[in-house]
Amino acid sequence: MLSYIKRFLIGRPLKSTELGEQKLTKTKALAILSSDALSSVAYGPEQILLVLMAVGAIAYWYSIPIAAGVLVLLVALILSYRQIIFAYPHGGGAYVVSRQNLGVLPGLIAGGSLLVDYILTVAVSVSAGTDAITSALPSLHPYTVAIAAGFVLLITILNLRGVTESATVFAFPVYLFVLALVILICSGLYKIITGQISPELHAPLGTPAAGISLFLLLRAFASGCTALTGVEAISNAIPNFKDPAPRNAATTLLAMGGILAVLFTGIVFLAYYYGVGHLAEVTVLSQIAEQTFGRNFMYFFIQGTTALILILAANTGYSAFPLLAVNLAKDKFIPRAFTVRGDRLGYSNGILFLGFFSILLIIVFEGKTELLIPLYAVGVFIPFTLSQSGMMVKWLREKPPGWIKKFLTNTIGALISLLVSVIFFITKFPNVWPVLIFLPLIIYFFHRIHKHYEAIADQLRISTCEPVVPIEGNVVIVPVAGITRVVENSLNYAKSLAPYQIIAVHVPFEKEEEAVFEEKWRKWQPDVRLVTLYSPYRSIIHPLIKFVDTVQKKAHEANYQVTVIIPQFIPKKGWHNVLHNQSSLLIRAHLLYRRNVIVATVPYHLKK
Amino acid sequence: MLSYIKRFLIGRPLKSTELGEQKLTKTKALAILSSDALSSVAYGPEQILLVLMAVGAIAYWYSIPIAAGVLVLLVALILSYRQIIFAYPHGGGAYVVSRQNLGVLPGLIAGGSLLVDYILTVAVSVSAGTDAITSALPSLHPYTVAIAAGFVLLITILNLRGVTESATVFAFPVYLFVLALVILICSGLYKIITGQISPELHAPLGTPAAGISLFLLLRAFASGCTALTGVEAISNAIPNFKDPAPRNAATTLLAMGGILAVLFTGIVFLAYYYGVGHLAEVTVLSQIAEQTFGRNFMYFFIQGTTALILILAANTGYSAFPLLAVNLAKDKFIPRAFTVRGDRLGYSNGILFLGFFSILLIIVFEGKTELLIPLYAVGVFIPFTLSQSGMMVKWLREKPPGWIKKFLTNTIGALISLLVSVIFFITKFPNVWPVLIFLPLIIYFFHRIHKHYEAIADQLRISTCEPVVPIEGNVVIVPVAGITRVVENSLNYAKSLAPYQIIAVHVPFEKEEEAVFEEKWRKWQPDVRLVTLYSPYRSIIHPLIKFVDTVQKKAHEANYQVTVIIPQFIPKKGWHNVLHNQSSLLIRAHLLYRRNVIVATVPYHLKK
Repeated sequence: MLSYIKRFLIGRPLKSTELGEQKLTKTKALAILSSDALSSVAYGPEQILLVLMAVGAIAYWYSIPIAAGVLVLLVALILSYRQIIFAYPHGGGAYVVSRQNLGVLPGLIAGGSLLVDYILTVAVSVSAGTDAITSALPSLHPYTVAIAAGFVLLITILNLRGVTESATVFAFPVYLFVLALVILICSGLYKIITGQISPELHAPLGTPAAGISLFLLLRAFASGCTALTGVEAISNAIPNFKDPAPRNAATTLLAMGGILAVLFTGIVFLAYYYGVGHLAEVTVLSQIAEQTFGRNFMYFFIQGTTALILILAANTGYSAFPLLAVNLAKDKFIPRAFTVRGDRLGYSNGILFLGFFSILLIIVFEGKTELLIPLYAVGVFIPFTLSQSGMMVKWLREKPPGWIKKFLTNTIGALISLLVSVIFFITKFPNVWPVLIFLPLIIYFFHRIHKHYEAIADQLRISTCEPVVPIEGNVVIVPVAGITRVVENSLNYAKSLAPYQIIAVHVPFEKEEEAVFEEKWRKWQPDVRLVTLYSPYRSIIHPLIKFVDTVQKKAHEANYQVTVIIPQFIPKKGWHNVLHNQSSLLIRAHLLYRRNVIVATVPYHLKK
Repeated sequence: MLSYIKRFLIGRPLKSTELGEQKLTKTKALAILSSDALSSVAYGPEQILLVLMAVGAIAYWYSIPIAAGVLVLLVALILSYRQIIFAYPHGGGAYVVSRQNLGVLPGLIAGGSLLVDYILTVAVSVSAGTDAITSALPSLHPYTVAIAAGFVLLITILNLRGVTESATVFAFPVYLFVLALVILICSGLYKIITGQISPELHAPLGTPAAGISLFLLLRAFASGCTALTGVEAISNAIPNFKDPAPRNAATTLLAMGGILAVLFTGIVFLAYYYGVGHLAEVTVLSQIAEQTFGRNFMYFFIQGTTALILILAANTGYSAFPLLAVNLAKDKFIPRAFTVRGDRLGYSNGILFLGFFSILLIIVFEGKTELLIPLYAVGVFIPFTLSQSGMMVKWLREKPPGWIKKFLTNTIGALISLLVSVIFFITKFPNVWPVLIFLPLIIYFFHRIHKHYEAIADQLRISTCEPVVPIEGNVVIVPVAGITRVVENSLNYAKSLAPYQIIAVHVPFEKEEEAVFEEKWRKWQPDVRLVTLYSPYRSIIHPLIKFVDTVQKKAHEANYQVTVIIPQFIPKKGWHNVLHNQSSLLIRAHLLYRRNVIVATVPYHLKK
């Protein structure tokens, strides 16, 4: 039943050898990996204007130099990540780069914050997309949480189906969004050039604005940098590309950078020229679209594709999270289960984990995840800083031809990223402080897990110098509840093992029952020794374990192994288990986890 | 940890032989078994007035003849249950009486409706008591559900501690309530006799009231009969009494009937004489108390003890439900687990089941369980009718000396009970219809369970004519994940069993891994045969099971038994299990539940 549903949702299992067919072309990769970065165009410019609004409309022209600053950072990041792609063709990303060049702790800081960040990406962007939908159709408002959770579920299922299938579904809206914004920007520029827009709507560049401060400008800059989240996704996902993977990934990265730069600049410029500011209920993008086209088809086309790409931005998390998890799991910092490929060759545990926690966040915050945006941005810029510092160290150490140029690129990137992180901490501390709690916690867990895996490996390794001592023989203990076919079956098996001794153990709750049972037993199995353990407190486990301990102590001295054979009847239907006490399971758990005895279960299958 | 909490809440385990000390004296039994019946005095008279209100205050005098009718029914029920107690000294109750005299189906109808009814009793009476508290302290209102659930939890824990301990705690408030009401009734009568109450407050008996109908009177009568719920509790609980149990139980029953009659008549009479009617916010009892004493200490004393006894009424359910469950379980209609005595000798599974479902009802209905009252009443009168019909059949069949008197007693009781049930169905169908759904469902489950237990017993029974064929020898299959100490340990054990053949099975996911592993194995364990099963779909279970099937088929022909030995390392701490795949558990479950092979787990305990 369950497996039919699974098959229907996810598709038939794929062979390991079919992996190559699942790889991404550049066009698909651009769609699948850049939706996060591109969608931030929808809120990045707005964030800048939101901060400048504190001074007044007169200060809106500062958005142009601030955008220039963001563009510089974008260029630095793109160039830097391009270098990372070639330096780490098996999937770079902040974790690998920081770990290899700066050490384990910086690597874990980068990895831990990205891991959390991808969960936040999914929750935040799906919620934002859902908000866009419910703003358009207010009657859906009471179902925000359910709709958002539904989208996450849908994206999770598509990702479980496999990367190329999800890319095919997702490519369309991403390119539509790009097309929509390009049309918007071109139309806007055309209107400006043909003089249809009054130049009086905006204050000219350089107009002095009273009350502007460096702090405010930096804050506006940091806010604008939220447009850069998602840039690192491609460098994490190199193994998903078709060969030659690094070259294809680098080209895709440049294309994404170019598109992002054009859209971001265009939107900021139009906003400035139209004199558009932040309004509580209408987004900047919506205002620009309305002033350019009026409320006609094009307006709704732009709004629609924006909502769609915000929801799809979640998909970036789904591409990057499982691969990051694989890297962390291979280094034994998170459970090994994250390295297992599912039926459709995706890292399904990572995908499921991400889906589960995103839905949890959406439910806990009731779909109002806007508060998480600063947290999410700071969680991006910490790994940015670390990975670029890592590249600096790498160039310094390796000094390849032309390293000074590369070193400078990364240094500029690192410094700006660091600055942005610091500005976030200073200007948005009330939103950002949780990072200081959960990051150390996560790193602590990473270490505990790592320590455990190391300890296990140590204990499992076979050192050739110590030969094992062969076991002399076996003592078999059979707990018996009554004189039934199940017990007969188990005794028959026990006898076939040709053990040293078989002991049947019965635990009566009433003194009178003891003698009766012993009498019956003598008649039935005269050759099997029976021990009865009267249990006044009506517990089967305790007397049995005490007895096993005694037997084992003696057996151990003679290098005999104790085996407990548990007779168990298996009902025909699952629900029947409710009708029988699960003593055999309890006995097994107690013995296996706390004592060094072998537990064998002899099933007796019921036919009706 | 868990076991410490359990010990703290419930107390040390008791020996089976300490059971006698847990039996009830008459005083304690009266308190513990009659709180339900006595507490219904708090709402029974009110229910009558509520119906009469439809005609007007002029019709309130009808409460007197209606109360007389209820008293007749009470006397009939008490006398009938007294006869049942002596006829069924091991615990009668509607289930046993109906089953023995009328057949299995009537028995199950009685048993099923009582089973549900006790759950309703607990939910309804605790909610009513909580309402009384939150009416007095309105600031607690938002926490109604939590408070009610807390009370259920408390009562559950007290009952898990054991019957006498709970009786000691509960006896006090029950007797206080009786005392409070006796004082109220006496003071009220004194005031009436001394002429302090105007006789004009009420219409004299026989005043004609326009609009009164037989239907309305019958409905008022049925409503008044809710005061009789709980009367059967004593006859179910005879085994809880000190010896001579039947005599003590009968005396207790008479005492309860007497007290109930006095309180019920007193309250109805005072309500009539004071001209008190149903008000939305103040209970009838509260109005009487206020008019008698004013709002002084006595008023609050009466209100307080009323709230308390309503909550304690739940305890009747706790006394009766587990005993009824034992009877049903002994007859194999519900899971055998209900017959197991817990650490403190109470039937703890029944107690826990009752507590769980009552809390569930309280949560689902958000503490507003008043709607369940008619459901609950009809669930009482169906078994009343059945048990008295059963007694009729018994007297007719056995014809003991003086049987005609006994037969007539039960006939009157049966007819009135039947009438009340019918009136409930006719006048309150919108509240009562769920009975028609869940009762057949429950009885269906009873039958399914019974059939299963019968089938099991059949299959487990050893028929001496068929001797078992001894097993010729063993084929041992050891699934191996790698070359580790855990595997070494398991192979060592497998060799000690002196089997016919050992086969190690490895399931690689990559074609290349296959050859490498085989090579390594040949060097390590040249004498153990290795089979590798390449799994392109990355499943361990499926190839392994297919292989086991093949081996088993061959082995079966030669009367060899297949044993699968699963190497399993047991981490030192529970949470470590998250870090390892649970393949061994999966393999075990698949093999044990679907195949006829023996599964032995060889633990390898990690030390760090």
